[in-house]
Amino acid sequence: MATRRGRGRPPGESDARARIAAAAVHEFGEHGYDGATVRGIAARAEVDAALVHHYFGTKPDLFAEVTQFPLRPDLEVPRILRGPREEAGERIVRFVLESFERPEVRKRGVIVLRTAISGKLTAPLVKGFLSRELLPRVAAELDAPDAALRASLVASQIAGMLIARYVVQLPGIADAPVDELVARIAPTIQRYLFE
Amino acid sequence: MATRRGRGRPPGESDARARIAAAAVHEFGEHGYDGATVRGIAARAEVDAALVHHYFGTKPDLFAEVTQFPLRPDLEVPRILRGPREEAGERIVRFVLESFERPEVRKRGVIVLRTAISGKLTAPLVKGFLSRELLPRVAAELDAPDAALRASLVASQIAGMLIARYVVQLPGIADAPVDELVARIAPTIQRYLFE
Repeated sequence: MATRRGRGRPPGESDARARIAAAAVHEFGEHGYDGATVRGIAARAEVDAALVHHYFGTKPDLFAEVTQFPLRPDLEVPRILRGPREEAGERIVRFVLESFERPEVRKRGVIVLRTAISGKLTAPLVKGFLSRELLPRVAAELDAPDAALRASLVASQIAGMLIARYVVQLPGIADAPVDELVARIAPTIQRYLFE
Repeated sequence: MATRRGRGRPPGESDARARIAAAAVHEFGEHGYDGATVRGIAARAEVDAALVHHYFGTKPDLFAEVTQFPLRPDLEVPRILRGPREEAGERIVRFVLESFERPEVRKRGVIVLRTAISGKLTAPLVKGFLSRELLPRVAAELDAPDAALRASLVASQIAGMLIARYVVQLPGIADAPVDELVARIAPTIQRYLFE
């Protein structure tokens, strides 16, 4: 971030950074999350792959950067799971809802949800990100033979909750206080994870 | 339906029917489900409102017809709720999953889910249909002060399940047998409805 926002840096650096970001949008859009590679992005931006890592870190970092989604569920959710097990469902639902109550998260999150589900280009993107970066990390914390099913059931209820409350805005779930929704939905998440 | 498929009807009838259907698509798209009226549709099609009712029945019938969705959740779900209460969750999840396992339902259902969530025009359509035709009927069966919240929580998990399994096709939930998903998700629906 220092590089990005620093003053007095030599011209050319920000050009390379912008070229990499634009190349990443193209490559993710064309090949999906799984198909896009840092090498391919570097080649399209006409820079060395090391420079991509220098500016943007790893592939999920780069994805988070180009989608500009102000949360990192791939980092936050496994961290949240590591607390006391009996309240994991509550912590996850509360984290997601309190995040989406922040306008900058909600605005970008609604766009991500809409495009993830509607677009032929973007659906594989988000599926790839979830399948590679989020769900296996959740599954690893669970350490159960049916961990993939458990993680994807959690994703189904969290996504459904966000869509019903913030995208479609169904009466009832759209108007309920966060605490009420946590009380109703946390036991679902808890059961999908551990029971 | 006899009118639609009958033979030997005078020419002009099918023209009027097609004009009404086209007018309905326009009016629903322009005004949303709530804003569209049978009168407005009749006026746009240059026919009498009685003819709209004659060909298509009520507004939800007309909506089902023009979206060509081969299920009527507004009729089916309340019917399902009326059976033995302790298995209502299971009946709902099984009904929805077994319906979506039929290719003609799945194909159209994926389109409806995608457009419902993505489109600025279609989102109010589906919200209006759910809010006016499905959720109040579910809520009426529940007869509880928080019935609207309960019904919308059910909708959130059913929608999330369908999106995760059939649209985004997340590993785990996309591969699981119907019986496995019924066993995992039915208790959620049961709890949202009655507990």
